Amino acid sequence: MDEREALRALAGTVPEAGDDAAVVDGLAVTTDMLHRSTDFPAGTTQYTAGWRAVAASLSDIAAMGADPVAAVAAYAETSLDWGEIEAFVRGAKAVCTEVGGEYVGGDLDDHEELTVTSTVVGRADRPVFRSGATPGEAVCVTGTLGRSAAALELFERGETERANELFRFTPRVEAGRTLAGRAGAMMDSSDGLARSLHQLAEASDCGFAIESPLPVDTTVEEIADTAEQRREMGAFFGEDFELVCTVPEEALERLREELSVGLTKIGRVVESGVTLDGEPLPDRGYTHG
Amino acid sequence: MDEREALRALAGTVPEAGDDAAVVDGLAVTTDMLHRSTDFPAGTTQYTAGWRAVAASLSDIAAMGADPVAAVAAYAETSLDWGEIEAFVRGAKAVCTEVGGEYVGGDLDDHEELTVTSTVVGRADRPVFRSGATPGEAVCVTGTLGRSAAALELFERGETERANELFRFTPRVEAGRTLAGRAGAMMDSSDGLARSLHQLAEASDCGFAIESPLPVDTTVEEIADTAEQRREMGAFFGEDFELVCTVPEEALERLREELSVGLTKIGRVVESGVTLDGEPLPDRGYTHG
Repeated sequence: MDEREALRALAGTVPEAGDDAAVVDGLAVTTDMLHRSTDFPAGTTQYTAGWRAVAASLSDIAAMGADPVAAVAAYAETSLDWGEIEAFVRGAKAVCTEVGGEYVGGDLDDHEELTVTSTVVGRADRPVFRSGATPGEAVCVTGTLGRSAAALELFERGETERANELFRFTPRVEAGRTLAGRAGAMMDSSDGLARSLHQLAEASDCGFAIESPLPVDTTVEEIADTAEQRREMGAFFGEDFELVCTVPEEALERLREELSVGLTKIGRVVESGVTLDGEPLPDRGYTHG
Repeated sequence: MDEREALRALAGTVPEAGDDAAVVDGLAVTTDMLHRSTDFPAGTTQYTAGWRAVAASLSDIAAMGADPVAAVAAYAETSLDWGEIEAFVRGAKAVCTEVGGEYVGGDLDDHEELTVTSTVVGRADRPVFRSGATPGEAVCVTGTLGRSAAALELFERGETERANELFRFTPRVEAGRTLAGRAGAMMDSSDGLARSLHQLAEASDCGFAIESPLPVDTTVEEIADTAEQRREMGAFFGEDFELVCTVPEEALERLREELSVGLTKIGRVVESGVTLDGEPLPDRGYTHG
């Protein structure tokens, strides 16, 4: 079975595992394992790897509307090099400084390739789950989509500095906190917008009518040659870590004033079916390696 | 550099990383990465692996005198098999049911070999650190030592059922909770008694005068052929996950009445030097692979 099937099966055994983070007794906890071969393309600096590993978990905490408290990482590499570890830790600490939470170390280990498991715990007084979307609400996304897709293309072109910058995304912790208690349903777009929408639809037993244009990163506009490529990068590629949420129409204006990141309405919650401009939106996207 | 050197260096960057678990804002967090090749000998069942992986982190939480709230595990294997994952999860949940905390799932991934990162978060209202030992206090250890050393020998002999049972240790969460606010210093014996004592001595700037006999597991008595082997298994092998702590002499009797696990006085805190029966106790033990 692939990871997704296994996760679904696992969710049956562990009911708390079906959301971006588990919520127990007012605490949200999430853990993510990353590998060099699947998550850090050639050219990714150790600083970026540390940032991104912890940021991915911070994004899960943000997607619950929770406040990060502490982050830890277990770090394994073929040979442990202090300079590399130190750069990794600097990146991990930097993203915590930017959005909240304290990086408090972790575990070190030998392994065949760089393998990092990051875990973040936060306080979740008003957790937002995937299951609360209601027909009539607006569907929104923070920031822009396609950032990681563009970064990968830049890594391939050897433009590693710009690629590393794009890879060091800002987890939407502040937005998640503001949306807590106001969004009906929320998750992050780490598997791609299309897959996220299908997951929200399944959890909330609803549908989504999405309308283009989607808010796409300027680097995508620059890199993609065709509208088809732009759509692919924006809707399917994933690893973007924006928040996808549903909010009452009447709350939109006020939320936009409060948020320091853009909140784009991309459609509305309907009874069933996930469509883009009236056509079925396929349930495909990034399957985490 | 080896893991220990790197950890020490890391502790300089991340001051919270020098104890069994980091404590931030009333929460204790710990993470541990385990691999089949170094941590799960041939014959270890998936149920035992799940139990032991989460138990190792629960032990770190216990060593802070904290209350476990939630446990997560990131699980990677060459190919994901639902039966194996299910058995792993059952083991992970079982140990949480036994000592407290809720197992709430985690992440699944492909990897070259079974690699598990378990993380536990707990509430730490009265955390006990490694640094609080005071000369004159009694040095104590919970339960018995040498259990994992004996298990490894049994795995080698093909007595896998008994070996698995020994491997599924009970983290001393209840004892840790009882010792919180009363022990001067505490840590678990995962690196072996000798190394634990040296780490406590360094953190507390003190010494320990230890007297034999050490409380050794009955299986060690059965398996070890010589007194030298018993000593090796009890004092140095490690991976036992008992609590090593210092407590005021006058508190000992009361603590023993309250605890459901044995608490053996093995010596006393002195100004400097770590000795066993008057001879220097070498600072060696298990270096986690």
